[in-house]
Amino acid sequence: MSVNQHLDALRDYMRRFNVDAVIIPGTDPHQSEYVSDYYKFREWLTGFTGSNGTAVVTVDDAALWTDSRYFLQAAEQLDGTGFSLMREGDYGDLSRTEWLAERLGEDDVIAIDGRLFTVNEVNRLDHYCGEHGFMLATDFVPADRIWTDRPPFPKASAYVHELKYAGEDIDSKVTALVGVIEQLGATGVLLTALDDIAWLYNLRGDDVLYTPVVTAYAFVSSSERSLFIDPGKVTTEVKEHLRASGVHIREYDDIVRYLERKRDGEYVLLDPDRVSDTLAQALPCGKVYSPSPVAALKAVKNDVQIEGFRSAHLRDAAALVKLLGWLERSVPAGGVTEVAVAEKIASLRAGSGDLYREESFGAIVGYGEHGAIVHYEVTPETDVELRPEGLLLIDTGGQYLDGTTDVTRTVTLGTPSPEQRRDYTLVLKGHLALQAAVFPMGTTGMQLDVLARMPLWQSGLNYGHGTGHGVGQFLCCHEGPQSIRTNFNPTPLRAGMVTSNEPGLYLAGEYGIRIENLMLCVKSDLPGDFLAFEPLTLVPYDRRLIDSSMLTAAEVDRINAYHALVAERLLPLLSGDDASWLQRATAAIG
Amino acid sequence: MSVNQHLDALRDYMRRFNVDAVIIPGTDPHQSEYVSDYYKFREWLTGFTGSNGTAVVTVDDAALWTDSRYFLQAAEQLDGTGFSLMREGDYGDLSRTEWLAERLGEDDVIAIDGRLFTVNEVNRLDHYCGEHGFMLATDFVPADRIWTDRPPFPKASAYVHELKYAGEDIDSKVTALVGVIEQLGATGVLLTALDDIAWLYNLRGDDVLYTPVVTAYAFVSSSERSLFIDPGKVTTEVKEHLRASGVHIREYDDIVRYLERKRDGEYVLLDPDRVSDTLAQALPCGKVYSPSPVAALKAVKNDVQIEGFRSAHLRDAAALVKLLGWLERSVPAGGVTEVAVAEKIASLRAGSGDLYREESFGAIVGYGEHGAIVHYEVTPETDVELRPEGLLLIDTGGQYLDGTTDVTRTVTLGTPSPEQRRDYTLVLKGHLALQAAVFPMGTTGMQLDVLARMPLWQSGLNYGHGTGHGVGQFLCCHEGPQSIRTNFNPTPLRAGMVTSNEPGLYLAGEYGIRIENLMLCVKSDLPGDFLAFEPLTLVPYDRRLIDSSMLTAAEVDRINAYHALVAERLLPLLSGDDASWLQRATAAIG
Repeated sequence: MSVNQHLDALRDYMRRFNVDAVIIPGTDPHQSEYVSDYYKFREWLTGFTGSNGTAVVTVDDAALWTDSRYFLQAAEQLDGTGFSLMREGDYGDLSRTEWLAERLGEDDVIAIDGRLFTVNEVNRLDHYCGEHGFMLATDFVPADRIWTDRPPFPKASAYVHELKYAGEDIDSKVTALVGVIEQLGATGVLLTALDDIAWLYNLRGDDVLYTPVVTAYAFVSSSERSLFIDPGKVTTEVKEHLRASGVHIREYDDIVRYLERKRDGEYVLLDPDRVSDTLAQALPCGKVYSPSPVAALKAVKNDVQIEGFRSAHLRDAAALVKLLGWLERSVPAGGVTEVAVAEKIASLRAGSGDLYREESFGAIVGYGEHGAIVHYEVTPETDVELRPEGLLLIDTGGQYLDGTTDVTRTVTLGTPSPEQRRDYTLVLKGHLALQAAVFPMGTTGMQLDVLARMPLWQSGLNYGHGTGHGVGQFLCCHEGPQSIRTNFNPTPLRAGMVTSNEPGLYLAGEYGIRIENLMLCVKSDLPGDFLAFEPLTLVPYDRRLIDSSMLTAAEVDRINAYHALVAERLLPLLSGDDASWLQRATAAIG
Repeated sequence: MSVNQHLDALRDYMRRFNVDAVIIPGTDPHQSEYVSDYYKFREWLTGFTGSNGTAVVTVDDAALWTDSRYFLQAAEQLDGTGFSLMREGDYGDLSRTEWLAERLGEDDVIAIDGRLFTVNEVNRLDHYCGEHGFMLATDFVPADRIWTDRPPFPKASAYVHELKYAGEDIDSKVTALVGVIEQLGATGVLLTALDDIAWLYNLRGDDVLYTPVVTAYAFVSSSERSLFIDPGKVTTEVKEHLRASGVHIREYDDIVRYLERKRDGEYVLLDPDRVSDTLAQALPCGKVYSPSPVAALKAVKNDVQIEGFRSAHLRDAAALVKLLGWLERSVPAGGVTEVAVAEKIASLRAGSGDLYREESFGAIVGYGEHGAIVHYEVTPETDVELRPEGLLLIDTGGQYLDGTTDVTRTVTLGTPSPEQRRDYTLVLKGHLALQAAVFPMGTTGMQLDVLARMPLWQSGLNYGHGTGHGVGQFLCCHEGPQSIRTNFNPTPLRAGMVTSNEPGLYLAGEYGIRIENLMLCVKSDLPGDFLAFEPLTLVPYDRRLIDSSMLTAAEVDRINAYHALVAERLLPLLSGDDASWLQRATAAIG
């Protein structure tokens, strides 16, 4: 069946149940960013493979909303599918609700699968339907019926995330969590985010590509530690690990029935931006809505995790330096394509040692104009050969047992143009300014975001994505609650948080530039309550793309100090051509 | 009667009505920042003269809360009064509610004058009382009974703010306002903020020192334009002006009875952060809560106002340059005190032409350690003689018919120390970075605030006040809705807004540094929707305090370009010693 036939099948199913419009997000019942194949219904329906996208279908019309990272990719993938591309953000396109309001009439039915929508999303949708006289049905599950070649429910075994990497045992984490929820007036907490559960119980799994989580729910109170999981996933080792900490194993599918048995006097804490409407509705008892306390605990890494992050980044940087040297040597000979680069870095990471597990997200290797597609995914269909000219943007990362990496470097494959050097240097100036920030406790990422953008803004340029996201330890590559964005986020940055620093610039049809390090937030050496950033990523910037006439003396010093640090830490791990490449790449600039 | 006797009188009155605690803010029924003497009950009660301070009194204890601008001043003024100083913000002191919770028991009565508290303030207080089992009374008005030597209700006449300064007539403003409130679902709007009313009806008055407003209320709908005002204030000219635009004059004291006559089907818009609880409670009809639409309209200056602002700033700068030259010539001879400086600048402004009316706030002239008192007010008691050494901070401003100014300069009176030059240059670097900002439409002041702070933060320093506030045209020197602060404020900066840029540094017991310009937000010359700042204030920085070894080439260029602009614009207005002083003061730095 083609995408057009999938859309026809959905519309037939909609007509059968008198549904006028259906909203289909790309997530799973755990509100995951990356989902197992079993939940890729929106991808099956639309052909769009990006991680963020929501389809809306009426009997006559269909559209897909995604953010600026995916505008070019979505335009290509949606071409001829019957889905219009709608650009989220300040781009003049209609919002989903505006689009629907133009197409529906009084008493028309909007249907969703309530398991894929959070409490707050359904609240907003409900309010919207009330205002417009639409009906909202939250139990419409077409995927179960029309998706005939649906992949199976993920069956991989869970495994234990060892204490030597996690740094804190279940008992200690649960005790801290119960302390927080009781302060918030709750008697128990329902966890549905897969990384929250993996962190709390020191468990990992292989259900989702790029993110080592296991499909499960959890419930915790002062007297209970439950894990809802398919019994087929529970190995003897995992059973032992959980039993030793008093964690009770229950059937994954029992979660709704379990919640329905909660009683008056119980107050269940749930994150209205993470827990699904279906599960919240199942609770007959008191509810305490709060941002996930686990997200806040998990974001601050302990000393063992910090050492793991540093160590993983060292091995990861060595792999990337080998890639960059190999590129310089191999491209002029011909035959190197984007796909080959993605395969090469994956194999270099795999060769970095026993702790490597998988990529932390789909490699972005964008040559020339492909670099301007912010989250370009290399595929055989779009693959091109690299020539000794132009810019190459490489955004990749690895999942290691001791840490997760996410690094972007943009390199020139030939002699860069003055415009390319100017643009690279503007992006680098912002990246350096954010890296050099010092700030009092209580400062949020929204306050710091402007540091990364001002050099671009002063040239009339900008980028349409956030500047920084949190990163989990051997968990989600995108993790909350902190962020560095123009959007309001009240979470202050705290010592122990790991956050990316990734300004960019994208010239459609020409090239893209992004420079990304992960940074550890640390207490500053200054007297008083000041914080600062330590760079975890240790990979040289491209000296050939730096126009030092645009730099201040302080910026030159920062680049040279960073490159000296990179050389000092990485040279012991390298030899031969790789070592001499690194020495050249980290030589001081004037 | 002394302050202690005032406190005794209040406690006697509290006991008579079985009141256990009373909260006394420094505002008036219009939530003004500066109030007429008639409403200075908190000052009478506590002796503290700052513009921001709230007293809380129980039968056994008393305290006053103020912000960091006033910590040193309040400590001096409260000494021996029976009031403890409580420092607002992150200083470890108890909040008002924590302090009360420690002192009150179940069923104790907290009493307030509901006219002096906004809707939101009373909501929060009500919620707090509910949580702690306290009772809240909102009709406690001790000022009317115990303040025996109370000044009279302000009686000054209103006068017309001419169209040649205002740039927009009543009809046009009311039409725009009605359009906004109807979009928000309201049928009418209640205005209580004195500057909102003055702006809307192009009226001014002399009821409040420093702010040319007239005490009044207003109500506007598509079919009604009302002004509630003491008839004694309405001159023939004002009556004519209002009648010509169909504005109906009503008695000031009729406002509650008027609101009580509103009927079902009417929806009155009111700003829950500006309108008092007493007036909101009087409304028996529908209410639409929204930030004041007048504040948003008023903040964006029209072309006539912008020309007025530029012109007023030119005359104001000439006065300040004359002051700075005079200072340099006079201080070595002796006999010049802080009070003399304040009087001199006021007289120079008064001599600047017919459009000058009064100071826009109480002059802050802080020599040496007095400069570290952020809002130090010069008084004969604290006055000191200036010697040819140390730093002098001068923060003053003028009300002109065509614009309002607010400018701070810090100058050295002798040979500055390396630490003074370092500190001045750090503050200046932040000031220059904010002035040079370019940003896309939609950017808020909170996003830009960090630009002014980062040079200080990177040295482990900070300042405890906001970086920028809006400024009215011949109205409030502090005006919303925009601001440049670390606090969240969702209002984007818009072309036509006037905002201050005033980073500082305060070393208690040593000196204070603040550098403040007003900036006009303008559309940038760059392609795309970028905004930038044009400096309105045109007064030289102190070259002797600039350590150019700490500056980037771009910062040196910015200083020299600003000084060249100052010289070009101001020299035609100056002659003799003043002109030659300005030439020296604006000479290029290396």
